[in-house]
Amino acid sequence: MKTLEMHLNVSLLHARYAQSIDDDRLEEWPDFFTRDCLYVITSYENHHRGLQAGIVYCDSKGMLQDRVSGLRQANIYERQRYRHLVSIPTIIQVDGQLLKARTPFAVYRIVRNKPSELFVTGSYEDELVLDADDNLLITKRIVVCDSSVFDTLLAIPL
Amino acid sequence: MKTLEMHLNVSLLHARYAQSIDDDRLEEWPDFFTRDCLYVITSYENHHRGLQAGIVYCDSKGMLQDRVSGLRQANIYERQRYRHLVSIPTIIQVDGQLLKARTPFAVYRIVRNKPSELFVTGSYEDELVLDADDNLLITKRIVVCDSSVFDTLLAIPL
Amino acid sequence: MKTLEMHLNVSLLHARYAQSIDDDRLEEWPDFFTRDCLYVITSYENHHRGLQAGIVYCDSKGMLQDRVSGLRQANIYERQRYRHLVSIPTIIQVDGQLLKARTPFAVYRIVRNKPSELFVTGSYEDELVLDADDNLLITKRIVVCDSSVFDTLLAIPL
Repeated sequence: MKTLEMHLNVSLLHARYAQSIDDDRLEEWPDFFTRDCLYVITSYENHHRGLQAGIVYCDSKGMLQDRVSGLRQANIYERQRYRHLVSIPTIIQVDGQLLKARTPFAVYRIVRNKPSELFVTGSYEDELVLDADDNLLITKRIVVCDSSVFDTLLAIPL
Repeated sequence: MKTLEMHLNVSLLHARYAQSIDDDRLEEWPDFFTRDCLYVITSYENHHRGLQAGIVYCDSKGMLQDRVSGLRQANIYERQRYRHLVSIPTIIQVDGQLLKARTPFAVYRIVRNKPSELFVTGSYEDELVLDADDNLLITKRIVVCDSSVFDTLLAIPL
Repeated sequence: MKTLEMHLNVSLLHARYAQSIDDDRLEEWPDFFTRDCLYVITSYENHHRGLQAGIVYCDSKGMLQDRVSGLRQANIYERQRYRHLVSIPTIIQVDGQLLKARTPFAVYRIVRNKPSELFVTGSYEDELVLDADDNLLITKRIVVCDSSVFDTLLAIPL
């Protein structure tokens, strides 16, 4: 894949990923990942200290699906929604079919009868692969949140 | 138009649209639309309930031009400015010359002698067409604001 | 360079520039500029009044390097970090090898034990040139901050 095309494909993956969450199509969210995958939400401080333990830790697509089921049962979406703003990715490394990218984001939270407010900023540290149909899938996503101060409401995927 | 090119053209339209508002070149704003067009500002809640009534409702380029004249007479711009941050679009559908896109945004408000503050987040639900010169024009833009809580100062186009 | 390619290259420059600051690789920051360059941080109000004096004014790569050394000695980074969100650029003008671009941004500040908060919004007013290896370099960057209200902590490059 050429640079231009690669860069655009990563951007489009981010756009579709974010949109599926913000549009409450959570069931589509696990499909952005490979069967064996890693999805971690952690803080900048922990990430740069090399600490593996995150606030959220899922190491298979099945765990992501379970997470969605749990959210549906808890009806979290009734109480809050997110709005993702994703910035321009940088491609860190291309190694055969594996692509490493880093992408800054801001997520806003919307609670009924209140104005939108900034929820969290951070960067996606991604490892992406092309599947047989040339779709880009996430095999590893570390969501590195800038602040260590997390609201206890953290529940919807970032 | 190829995917890459189409996606870039939508992004560029957003960038120019936002810049014309943020640079106080409001008179250029109606020119982003076709003569017959729809421009609506509404809330996520109303939009997903299928309610047509918006906070702002203009169904022709002439109405957009009237809106700009009104703003100039009211000197709204003396009191506040906006800064749009537009994220990556997703192309929802391509149907001949008609293109449907969804694009998240955040708008910040700047009032003299105060720091910038978040004003509104949301998404543009757009229907776009190519004119005879291959320029992309807006034939329908629903500005879906995430929150239903609107400041009464809402006056400058989003 | 074709429009598509040009636009992407400007976007990538922004992404790498912002990432180097947010990742605390400040020593790489001056390398985004040509030897003779201009880097100014100013306010929207001053910029549109044509006032040259900015809050920060550097007119050579050497001055940018001195600035980084100063920051390292003052250990500013221990106390705060930034997160840049860069939006879609508009290419204002192409004149031979010189390219003028305008790009909106938001910068969030992260202070230990606090949630991220909006620090400043604004736009980069850039003049960019291609070097012998076809890399885009900044020969002039006016960082136009929307608000005139600046925190005294302004120290890390924007």
